[in-house]
Amino acid sequence: MDKVTQNAIKARLGQKAVELIDEGMVVGLGTGSTAECLIESLIKKCQQGLTIRAVSSSLRSMEMAQKGGISVIDINETPVIDLTIDGADEVDPQYRLIKGRGGALVREKILASSSKKMIVIIDESKLVPVLGQGPLPVEIIPFGYKATIAKINRLGYKGKLREQDMKPYMTDNGNFIFDITPSSPFHYPEEDHKKIIGVPGVVDTGFFFGLASDIIIGYANGNVKLQKIK
Amino acid sequence: MDKVTQNAIKARLGQKAVELIDEGMVVGLGTGSTAECLIESLIKKCQQGLTIRAVSSSLRSMEMAQKGGISVIDINETPVIDLTIDGADEVDPQYRLIKGRGGALVREKILASSSKKMIVIIDESKLVPVLGQGPLPVEIIPFGYKATIAKINRLGYKGKLREQDMKPYMTDNGNFIFDITPSSPFHYPEEDHKKIIGVPGVVDTGFFFGLASDIIIGYANGNVKLQKIK
Repeated sequence: MDKVTQNAIKARLGQKAVELIDEGMVVGLGTGSTAECLIESLIKKCQQGLTIRAVSSSLRSMEMAQKGGISVIDINETPVIDLTIDGADEVDPQYRLIKGRGGALVREKILASSSKKMIVIIDESKLVPVLGQGPLPVEIIPFGYKATIAKINRLGYKGKLREQDMKPYMTDNGNFIFDITPSSPFHYPEEDHKKIIGVPGVVDTGFFFGLASDIIIGYANGNVKLQKIK
Repeated sequence: MDKVTQNAIKARLGQKAVELIDEGMVVGLGTGSTAECLIESLIKKCQQGLTIRAVSSSLRSMEMAQKGGISVIDINETPVIDLTIDGADEVDPQYRLIKGRGGALVREKILASSSKKMIVIIDESKLVPVLGQGPLPVEIIPFGYKATIAKINRLGYKGKLREQDMKPYMTDNGNFIFDITPSSPFHYPEEDHKKIIGVPGVVDTGFFFGLASDIIIGYANGNVKLQKIK
């Protein structure tokens, strides 16, 4: 799928997702290029009169929303988040996800699991038969990160520390990301998740289980399909 | 046990633990009042000619060691830690621990699990038949901490956010601590640990399983006993 097609799909996904947002809602905003298309559509709708408050999973998404005139509140200030809309890197037939290639997996998971509903917006290329077609991001504490990575390696997971400008990439939580390169797909991702989060120094993995309530899939032929999950 | 007796025991524990440290070792330093007695004894032994390098689980312990002339290195600078010596809040008959009432549980666990050996030093009052006589500290991400605590509560664990100077206590990792107050002791602590670390936003719990290699117990009658575990 070429870049132009992909961008057109993302724009349609953003428009479709915004239709699910009602007046007065508290909306969780994901991070990444698909979430940014949603934020763009949301800004337009708010300029046309919709009033909502947003909670953001990253400083990047927060700044984008605020610049567009959306009121962004701290997650700890609201007892309820009505809806979180976010992209995903991979989605399997059981709607299990891999997220975090955009670097915000922990905040995205906190946000999604604190929301009444999580709407996942993806183009069809993200649908996979088994998770693990690409890397699995794992957020780790900087203190002792080399030893932590060695422990993850000893469990059988190879990968590399994510870097930016020749330094370890730092999440909004002040942590690092180790990207596991699967030697084979994750046929039992719940087991992999349990093993990996059991390593001291690991904050969380990019696996999202049982969180998606609806999924909006954009196809190269122009179709956009909304599917209820729970 | 009164404060004077407790302090005398801690001093003896420090002296006994220092005997296990050999020339040239890389030594992990715990955090808390018992670990501080160890650091005091270690400073004395280094002044008498012992040369070691230390890795610290907290800024507090690091400063104390450095003031005493001990060379403290970053944990990511050494491929091997020979020995970590640390206190514990509770120790059960299977040598499972609760740690973290001093606020450094995540770094202490990273350090202990990265060391060839972990020596636990405690006075006899820390020996308990079942873990959960006091609080179980849980380190959590500040982003969405209220929602994270609500999720821990829904699993059946009540408690309170640790505070300092009327604000949430902040760990060296920039996180908060939620102290679970057990309504009954933890008869299956591995199960409790798995449930709690499965909550998005939880970094780790104060449970330490399978990490202690030796334990030094100080008794009110003046005895100090070293017990090998593995």
